[in-house]
Amino acid sequence: MVEAIGHNEKSDRITAPCIMVIFGATGDLTKRKLFPALYNLAKSQHLTRDFAIVCVSRSEISNEAFREQISGDIKSFATTSVEEGIWNWFLERIYYISGDVKLPETYQKLKTLLTELDQKHATLGNYFFYLSTSPDYFGEIVKQLGSAGLMHEEGGAFRRVIIEKPFGHDLESARKLNTDISRVLDEKQIYRIDHYLGKETVQNILVFRFGNAIFEPIWNRRYIDHIQITAAETVGVEKRGGYYDTSGALRDMVPNHLLQLLSLTAMEPPISFEANAVRGEQAKVLQAISPIPHWVNDEVLAAYRTEPQVVPDSTTETFVALKLMIDNWRWAGVPFYIRTGKRMPKRVTEISIQFKQAPLLLFRNTPVERLRTNRLVIHIQPDEGISLRFGAKIPGPVMKVGAVEMDFNYSDYFGSTPSTGYERLLYDCMIGDATLFQRADMVEAGWQVIEPVLDVWKALPPRKFPNYPAGTWGPPEADELLKTDGHEWWKIEE
Amino acid sequence: MVEAIGHNEKSDRITAPCIMVIFGATGDLTKRKLFPALYNLAKSQHLTRDFAIVCVSRSEISNEAFREQISGDIKSFATTSVEEGIWNWFLERIYYISGDVKLPETYQKLKTLLTELDQKHATLGNYFFYLSTSPDYFGEIVKQLGSAGLMHEEGGAFRRVIIEKPFGHDLESARKLNTDISRVLDEKQIYRIDHYLGKETVQNILVFRFGNAIFEPIWNRRYIDHIQITAAETVGVEKRGGYYDTSGALRDMVPNHLLQLLSLTAMEPPISFEANAVRGEQAKVLQAISPIPHWVNDEVLAAYRTEPQVVPDSTTETFVALKLMIDNWRWAGVPFYIRTGKRMPKRVTEISIQFKQAPLLLFRNTPVERLRTNRLVIHIQPDEGISLRFGAKIPGPVMKVGAVEMDFNYSDYFGSTPSTGYERLLYDCMIGDATLFQRADMVEAGWQVIEPVLDVWKALPPRKFPNYPAGTWGPPEADELLKTDGHEWWKIEE
Repeated sequence: MVEAIGHNEKSDRITAPCIMVIFGATGDLTKRKLFPALYNLAKSQHLTRDFAIVCVSRSEISNEAFREQISGDIKSFATTSVEEGIWNWFLERIYYISGDVKLPETYQKLKTLLTELDQKHATLGNYFFYLSTSPDYFGEIVKQLGSAGLMHEEGGAFRRVIIEKPFGHDLESARKLNTDISRVLDEKQIYRIDHYLGKETVQNILVFRFGNAIFEPIWNRRYIDHIQITAAETVGVEKRGGYYDTSGALRDMVPNHLLQLLSLTAMEPPISFEANAVRGEQAKVLQAISPIPHWVNDEVLAAYRTEPQVVPDSTTETFVALKLMIDNWRWAGVPFYIRTGKRMPKRVTEISIQFKQAPLLLFRNTPVERLRTNRLVIHIQPDEGISLRFGAKIPGPVMKVGAVEMDFNYSDYFGSTPSTGYERLLYDCMIGDATLFQRADMVEAGWQVIEPVLDVWKALPPRKFPNYPAGTWGPPEADELLKTDGHEWWKIEE
Repeated sequence: MVEAIGHNEKSDRITAPCIMVIFGATGDLTKRKLFPALYNLAKSQHLTRDFAIVCVSRSEISNEAFREQISGDIKSFATTSVEEGIWNWFLERIYYISGDVKLPETYQKLKTLLTELDQKHATLGNYFFYLSTSPDYFGEIVKQLGSAGLMHEEGGAFRRVIIEKPFGHDLESARKLNTDISRVLDEKQIYRIDHYLGKETVQNILVFRFGNAIFEPIWNRRYIDHIQITAAETVGVEKRGGYYDTSGALRDMVPNHLLQLLSLTAMEPPISFEANAVRGEQAKVLQAISPIPHWVNDEVLAAYRTEPQVVPDSTTETFVALKLMIDNWRWAGVPFYIRTGKRMPKRVTEISIQFKQAPLLLFRNTPVERLRTNRLVIHIQPDEGISLRFGAKIPGPVMKVGAVEMDFNYSDYFGSTPSTGYERLLYDCMIGDATLFQRADMVEAGWQVIEPVLDVWKALPPRKFPNYPAGTWGPPEADELLKTDGHEWWKIEE
C-alpha cells in the first residue's frame, strides 16, 4: 500500500551506546511515557544494546524494589505487547539511586555509578539527563551536574540534557534559566522537550509542506484567508491543580504547543532538515509575530474552582483565544486565530487553513459566504490525517456547487501507531538530532509573544473575566474575536 | 452531507413547451438512451408538461405498434424504476411517422403532424430535431428541414437541431458540413452533441477548476510536468464494424471526446458560464495545439479482423496514442499525452495531472523519481471522483516519505446517479444552453489537430503498423512515445 520514497540524510540506524539518567524518576512521566517509549525503541531495534538507565529520586527504595515496581507498571502503560525476553534485557540495565537534587553528594554518588556502568555496559561515557522534576530545580540540577564534572564532553563522548516544560513561567524567568544553564552547557547539549512535536502528524507538517510541490505556491497571503489552530481538552486539570492554578491555559499551552504548531505551519522552507536550519526558520516566524492585538481568556470553568489544589476563588484562566498577526512578506494581513481550553466538548488538536474564495465572476448569483469552500485541515489528534474541502458539481441537469471533502487518514495507510509520542524524541536526543526540540531563542520568542498579556494581568487588578460552562467551545467573547474580522470558528465535529 | 452552495445564473427550472423530432428513431440510441433520459427528466420534473415526441424512420410500422415496442424497451433500458403513471403520460405524446429522409414528402407529412400536435399539446411551435441517422444524411436532413420551412424561427418559437457524431470524417468534410448547414441554420440553432460532455465528472472539471481558488494558481507550466488522458474500452467494435472499419480509433475518439477533455482541462477561465464564453476558450486551446510531433497508432488488435463487417486484412487502427503540445503562455513545454483503444484491460476514462517535483534541497538523498508524488487524477468513468496523491511522513523515529492518496468519490456524496448521460444534454438543448455542445470552430479545430496524421496515412502506402494483443495497454511503441521524454504511462489499477 505504502511506497517508501526515500528518506533524509539521517538513515534508519540504532542509537549510539549511552546511559540515560532520569531525575524525578518516581513521577508519572517515567512509568506512563518514558519506560513504555524506551521499551518500544528496544523492541523495534532502534535502541543500542550498550545501554543503561539510572533513575534518581528522593524516595528511599532499593534497586530491586524499584525494578519490581516498574515491572508492574509496564503492564498497565505499555502500548505494545510486552515480550518477556526484551523486558528482562531492559530491566537488567535499570538502576535506582535515591538522593536530594539540591545536595552535591547526590551527584557524586551518581558519578561513581555512571563510571561503573560505563565499564559494565560499554556505554563509552555517553550520558543524557532527563529532567522530569519540578521546574524549580531545572537550573539547580544543571549547575550541580556541571560542578560534578558530568556535563563536560571529552574524548568524543556526549553529555546532553532534556528539559521538560514549563521552561520558565514568563519571559524574564525563561531568559534567566537560559542564562543559568548556558553557563554550564552549550546550546547543542540542551534538548528542551515539547511532546507535541513527537506526534507523527506534527512532523508531517514539514513533509507535507516541503515534500510536495503543490502546496507551497498557495501557502501565503495571496491565497490564504486565515488560519485557525485549536487545541481542546475534555479533561480538567486532574492532579495538576497546584501547578495549573499558578500557570493557567495561556502559560501552559501557548508558548510551547500552540506556537510550535503555528511556527511549523508558517515557517519559510529551511535550507535543510538539519536542526538549526529548521529551528532558525521557526524562530524567525515567532519573532515576526506582532504584539498581540486581541485576546480572550476565561477565568474559570464551572467546576474548576472545586478541583483539588485550586483556590476556591481562583481567577486562573482555563481557556484562551488569541489573534496573532505575523509581520513578514508571506503572512502580512493573514490572521492566525489560536485557542485552547479545558473541559471542551471534544479532545481535538487541529490546524485549519482557510483559503480565499475563487473569483466571483463565474458564480455571480452565489452568496459570497457559500463560496468559501477551500479549507485544508491538518488533524493532529485524535484522528491523525489531512482533509481538503473543495467545491464540486452536484449531479443533475442544473449547475449547482456542493462542498465535498477529500480525506487522507494516517491509519488507513500506516495502521494505528502504538506510540507514546516519546519514542521519536528520545531517539533523536540519543542520535544528537535536536530538530524537534526548542532552541533558546524559540522559547524566548514564545514567551515574548504572550508577555504583553501577562504584563496587563500583572498590572491590573483582577477583573470579571468571561466565563463558559464545561462542555462548550469557550465563552461568547471567543466568537466575537473572529466576528469582528468577518470570520468564525469552524465547527468541529463532536 | 452535501451542502448546496448556490448555483449559476441558470436556475433549476422546467423546460419550455416543445416537440422533439427524432430522425433514425428505430436505432439503438433512441431506445437505449433517449427515451430513458427523457423519462428521467419527466420523473424529476424538469420536463415541460406541454411536450410531444415525433419519431421518424423508414420502417413501416403504426403508431400503436411503435408505442408497444418502446413500452417493452423501456423495461430493459430504464435507469430508474418505471412508474406507470409517468410512463403512460409519456407514451401518449409519442408519435411515429415512416418516411425516407431523402424525400420532400416526408417533411411535408412531418410539418402537417407538427402543426396538429402544436395545437394538441400547446407546444407553441418550439421544435428540436435529433439527427440520429447515418452521418451521410445530416446535411440532407437539415437542407430538407429548411426547404420545408421547419427551421425558420418566428414569433419567439425556437427551432434547433442536435447532430450526432461523427461530424465529418476529416477536416474537409467537417468544413463542408458546417458550410452546408449554416446555409439553413444560425450557429445558435446547432447542437453538435458529444455524449461525453453529459457526464457529471466532465462538467465537474469546470467547477473544480474555477469554483475553487486553490487549483488555478498551480494549473500551469510552472507547476505541471505533463498531463495524461486515457480513454480505454474493453469492448471491441461490436455492431459498429462497418462504420468503425472506415473510421478507426483516431477519428472515432480523438477530435471529439479526447479533445473535449483536453480543452476543459487546459482552457483559460471563461468570463462566464455562458455557452459562447466557455466554448470560445475551448476553441482557443484547440487552435493553439501545435502540429502533432509524435503519434502511435495500432493497425489491428488480434481478433479485430474477424469481427462482423470488418475486412479481414483491415489496417484500421483500434488504438492511438498522441503527444500534443499547446503553444500558449500557460502550457508551453507541457506535454499532453492522450491514448485511446479498444480491448484494453479495463474500461476507464481519466485525466491525470502530474505536477513537478518539490525542490530537492530537503531530500538530497532521495532518488529523483521517487519524489514525483504529486498527481491529481480526475476519474471520469467508471468510478467518478478525484484523487490527489501526495507525500506524507511514514510513522517511525526516522524521516521517511511515503506516497499516499486523498480521495473524493462522487458516489460517497451524491449516491450513484441513475443517469444515461443524456438527460443534461437534452435538457440543455430544450432550454437553449449550448455550453456542452460543440461549436463549428471547435469541431474544425479538432479535425485540424489530427489532419496531419490523416494526411500521412492518405499519402503513404499502408505499412506495417505496431500491433498489440487484446487485453493489454497497447503496443510497446506507446510506451516509447513517453519514454523519450523521461515519462511513462501511469499504471491504471485493473
